[in-house]
Amino acid sequence: MHALIVHCHPEPKSFNGALTRIARETLEAGGATVEIADLYADGFDPVEGPRHYEPRADTARFAPLTEQRHASENDSLPADVAREIDRLERADLVILQFPLWWHAQPAMMKGWFDRVFVYGGLYTGSRRYDAGHFRGRRAMLSVTTGGPARSFTHYGRGGAIERLLWPIHYSLYYMGFGVLAPFLAHGIQGGGIAYQADNAFRTHLEDTKARWAERLRRLDDSRPIPFTGWSDWTDGVLDPEHPQRWA
Amino acid sequence: MHALIVHCHPEPKSFNGALTRIARETLEAGGATVEIADLYADGFDPVEGPRHYEPRADTARFAPLTEQRHASENDSLPADVAREIDRLERADLVILQFPLWWHAQPAMMKGWFDRVFVYGGLYTGSRRYDAGHFRGRRAMLSVTTGGPARSFTHYGRGGAIERLLWPIHYSLYYMGFGVLAPFLAHGIQGGGIAYQADNAFRTHLEDTKARWAERLRRLDDSRPIPFTGWSDWTDGVLDPEHPQRWA
Repeated sequence: MHALIVHCHPEPKSFNGALTRIARETLEAGGATVEIADLYADGFDPVEGPRHYEPRADTARFAPLTEQRHASENDSLPADVAREIDRLERADLVILQFPLWWHAQPAMMKGWFDRVFVYGGLYTGSRRYDAGHFRGRRAMLSVTTGGPARSFTHYGRGGAIERLLWPIHYSLYYMGFGVLAPFLAHGIQGGGIAYQADNAFRTHLEDTKARWAERLRRLDDSRPIPFTGWSDWTDGVLDPEHPQRWA
Repeated sequence: MHALIVHCHPEPKSFNGALTRIARETLEAGGATVEIADLYADGFDPVEGPRHYEPRADTARFAPLTEQRHASENDSLPADVAREIDRLERADLVILQFPLWWHAQPAMMKGWFDRVFVYGGLYTGSRRYDAGHFRGRRAMLSVTTGGPARSFTHYGRGGAIERLLWPIHYSLYYMGFGVLAPFLAHGIQGGGIAYQADNAFRTHLEDTKARWAERLRRLDDSRPIPFTGWSDWTDGVLDPEHPQRWA
């Protein structure tokens, strides 16, 4: 088993950094090999735009999917995108490690989706969802939040966490991944840095790290989150003949 | 009435570009003044990180909220962030114009949230949600998608659009904005560029532009989307004494 951890945090000494180190150690102890894509350390550019494409399919007007397909077909993908795709191709399991910023992944991680999951090369109109490129492989989010767990509930102050993460989960499913339930590390204030003098907080951090290691040791117990797929849809919509499956 | 359009698309000739021009013309024709924050044209840097902060609150470890608060208090916010905040402070209405990329806003726009909505300066633990800095002002999303409208339904192939946009809406509400229902321009393939020779597609684009102008002329008919707020929560959770309001 080979795992890729896509790690996104500007501070190596952050709690996100600690969680990624625990993931590497735990997975390796279980016999897996692990690669880490440290987006901030690599200086990954999250901004999709014309500067990444040479030669261009259309120099007069920049349409991202047109250029992605053209670069995929002509073996002229940007070097950093080609590197990330190589990392993904090697991985049986992909873990995305990031802090929840403004109810989603940081811009750096969002741009990793925008630029790396290239049209033509990694998906087309028919090669998506349960027919996606990475079918048979697993992906999961490991997310830290500043607020307490109880507030990330329906109508709670933080917003229902499964609702906040759903767009990211759907993007991973779009690429074919079997998406495992996320690991959630709530209540990590100040990046898990500022309050380490406080005993209760220090205990919370240690408990969370132990919970992460335990979850990683038991990943094979998890089944992917169910999504609708090609057999459910007629013309892009849930098949009215089989609504009960998802009612 | 002064409106700010935060525009995020790498190609000025795109359909997003057309929608922003229509918004400017329509709002100005109605007597408003309009400012456009063109993030790609400005070369906005969406990556939150230590390079933006000088002097630092803590040079040993980078915690974003710590540095944001410190820079707010010491009048040392990054120049581009200060400029975006000035733009927001002037605006009664904020329109975010962007294409749906990977089930969310492009990284460039996500980083605008990450960097501009600064802790300390624009929000604190008590100055959020219906007590947020921008209360009394309105915000709305104007979003283009490649897929057809019918697939962005519950259990449909595109994913329910209100679910995809909910994290962004919640971020705007977090800042105090009254969030209007989004304007959705579905079926804008190839950025609204590639297929303009096709008559049906050209008609669809023209109809969508007319629908946008009409929506903008009738903005005052819209009431903000309801969210739970401080009076609904007890310790961050929906108050069990008043569950019926949101059941």
